[in-house]
Amino acid sequence: MQDNPKTRPRVTLLPGHDKRARHGHPWIYSNEIAMDAAAKALPPGTLVTVVTAEGTQVAAATFNPHTLIAARVLTREAGSHIHDEFIRRRVRRALDIRDRLFPRPFYRLIHAEADGLPGLVVDRYGDVLAVQLNTAGMAMLWPSVMEALQAIINPRAIVLRGDSSARTQEGLPLGVEMALGELDGPVEIEENGGRFSIDVMGGQKTGWFFDQRENRAWVSRLAQGSRVLDLYTYGGGFAVAAALAGASEVLAIDRSEPALANASTGARLSGVEGVCTFKRGEVFAELEGRAKGEELWDLVIADPPAFVKSRKDLASGTRGYRKLAKLSAQVTKPGGYLFIASCSHNVELSVFAEQVARGVADANRSARILRTGGAGPDHPVHPMLPESAYLKSLTLAID
Amino acid sequence: MQDNPKTRPRVTLLPGHDKRARHGHPWIYSNEIAMDAAAKALPPGTLVTVVTAEGTQVAAATFNPHTLIAARVLTREAGSHIHDEFIRRRVRRALDIRDRLFPRPFYRLIHAEADGLPGLVVDRYGDVLAVQLNTAGMAMLWPSVMEALQAIINPRAIVLRGDSSARTQEGLPLGVEMALGELDGPVEIEENGGRFSIDVMGGQKTGWFFDQRENRAWVSRLAQGSRVLDLYTYGGGFAVAAALAGASEVLAIDRSEPALANASTGARLSGVEGVCTFKRGEVFAELEGRAKGEELWDLVIADPPAFVKSRKDLASGTRGYRKLAKLSAQVTKPGGYLFIASCSHNVELSVFAEQVARGVADANRSARILRTGGAGPDHPVHPMLPESAYLKSLTLAID
Repeated sequence: MQDNPKTRPRVTLLPGHDKRARHGHPWIYSNEIAMDAAAKALPPGTLVTVVTAEGTQVAAATFNPHTLIAARVLTREAGSHIHDEFIRRRVRRALDIRDRLFPRPFYRLIHAEADGLPGLVVDRYGDVLAVQLNTAGMAMLWPSVMEALQAIINPRAIVLRGDSSARTQEGLPLGVEMALGELDGPVEIEENGGRFSIDVMGGQKTGWFFDQRENRAWVSRLAQGSRVLDLYTYGGGFAVAAALAGASEVLAIDRSEPALANASTGARLSGVEGVCTFKRGEVFAELEGRAKGEELWDLVIADPPAFVKSRKDLASGTRGYRKLAKLSAQVTKPGGYLFIASCSHNVELSVFAEQVARGVADANRSARILRTGGAGPDHPVHPMLPESAYLKSLTLAID
Repeated sequence: MQDNPKTRPRVTLLPGHDKRARHGHPWIYSNEIAMDAAAKALPPGTLVTVVTAEGTQVAAATFNPHTLIAARVLTREAGSHIHDEFIRRRVRRALDIRDRLFPRPFYRLIHAEADGLPGLVVDRYGDVLAVQLNTAGMAMLWPSVMEALQAIINPRAIVLRGDSSARTQEGLPLGVEMALGELDGPVEIEENGGRFSIDVMGGQKTGWFFDQRENRAWVSRLAQGSRVLDLYTYGGGFAVAAALAGASEVLAIDRSEPALANASTGARLSGVEGVCTFKRGEVFAELEGRAKGEELWDLVIADPPAFVKSRKDLASGTRGYRKLAKLSAQVTKPGGYLFIASCSHNVELSVFAEQVARGVADANRSARILRTGGAGPDHPVHPMLPESAYLKSLTLAID
């Protein structure tokens, strides 16, 4: 990769807008930058040196003149060469952390800004990698990233999941393709003692939600001997974890037939197909029907897709969490447990917790919160971007 | 216990102040109550029926006319008899939850409001219970609580740790006494595979901080082969967990000689006395000395006492967390890990996280947050009192 800090294009911060960048914030917004003709003309993804109005260099960053987050900082040492070795060090550091945390190679390997590689997501399914390039800057750096992944991980296949909505904002084309090797079907992973079948090419996001691993392990502590209802089961992660922990019966519901097929394969691979039933259904309709039928469960798990995809959905989405909490509490046995999650970026924990508390009260039930959980440690958070901690979960003991 | 909902004294909410109580909030403040001569004359701790200005019954509560939190709700069913059986059901429910979560009888059994017993804390050290009665209301209910604990747990000893500052506000006397049986020395517990020696009569709070159990288990995942520095080790919980997980060396520091003696006993009981060194010292002074000496550690654990004991300490206390983060980051090896906690009620997670981020930046280090943790599930949170989640911890991977 070619990069020379001496000749790299520069973008200039507006006077008085250098404080956040100096303090290590990884994002610079377009309205903080002198967006002159030269800046506007830079191709999306260009490597730039960010300088203050006084000319002091504060960072090397990727730049996109067309997006709200205009510059994404790679390093505050603006004189660094952003070359293959720079990228390789970042990838190796990310791997070292996962190596320490996880005995088996199934995890999110790179989690964007928090791992020092803005816009890059890499999920590792053993020797298969699924990659998201979510910014123009990371798309430009991809050859170096790919080189680093091959040198350090040596995967047999790399899938480019270029179908995230973030790419549209960045002016990047949508599509899914192989960057390396071939895949002739689902891949298998291990998690919490279970085995699962993942559709890396066609599943949601990159095919599996590694972020819930620790939450699945936690919930399984509540499952022994229990009748478990797993809502939005997707690939069956919670259902199988509960079954392996000794649940007497697990009913898992999802609207997606292919997801249910994968979940069912996971139950079989994990040896718990006798305990798990996978049912196609719409969760709200299923809950409303069951609440009337007074069928109660010892443990209810509700891990829905994001109800709030953008700020304009905030009111309706938060009402959705309240309603889900109410219906879920209604079908939870007195003395039972409810795990409920939100993966909506735009819903803060305090807001989510308030909606859940209200929903449980709507169901005329009292409760205590046993645990508040986030994403697992392979989804780290940049210290200056606490709002990027998108996953929140609450576990309640319901009276 | 004598209680008749028909003849129980009543306190009346001021007009328009019934909403929170109706929604299940467990606290009613003195300025929400018609504090007439009759109300003021009620002995602290009296059982009352709370009624709205219109005369509708909304709760049965304990009442103290002299405290900011005047009424603490026991149940929204104001017609319930608050008798021995009522208390027994609450204790049994709390036990059922712990029984499911923990294989051995070492945990917080009752965590006040969240377990439906405002003002009551019971820590269980096997067949020894340590009890805090932190409100006048719970002090009045103690005979029923004691009866329930004997019926359900049948302990050999119950220690009343009546030395918490909360008691002074409630007009209760200070002191430590045996309510049942005798203790002739420390008690032993098991936690995360280690064994520890607890001074139930004289240690801080009730002698052990069960709230950090899950955090200790988590941190031990980072400890294998590492040189570990454990600051404010107290009873050695983190130090021994790290040693059992394969740390090559653990240096544990505390200012208290008796705490260090207990921690040292724990290391011996756990078979890791060869790995652990316990040193008396002031943490800030030790860190400042070591930062100059450039002695670096793979894993640094900082679990300080509350720096912010009341709102007036907020500014100095938050500066304390920032400084502790800075000094701790300075002695963390590049590529190492830092666990840092706050048990200050008055410091919100967002404030703590910001101070830690600043402290790490002050040390000229970059970092990612791997995990945000709270107290373990034996310290549940009332859904309407999210602010009572006092314990916060951050684990950072430090570049």
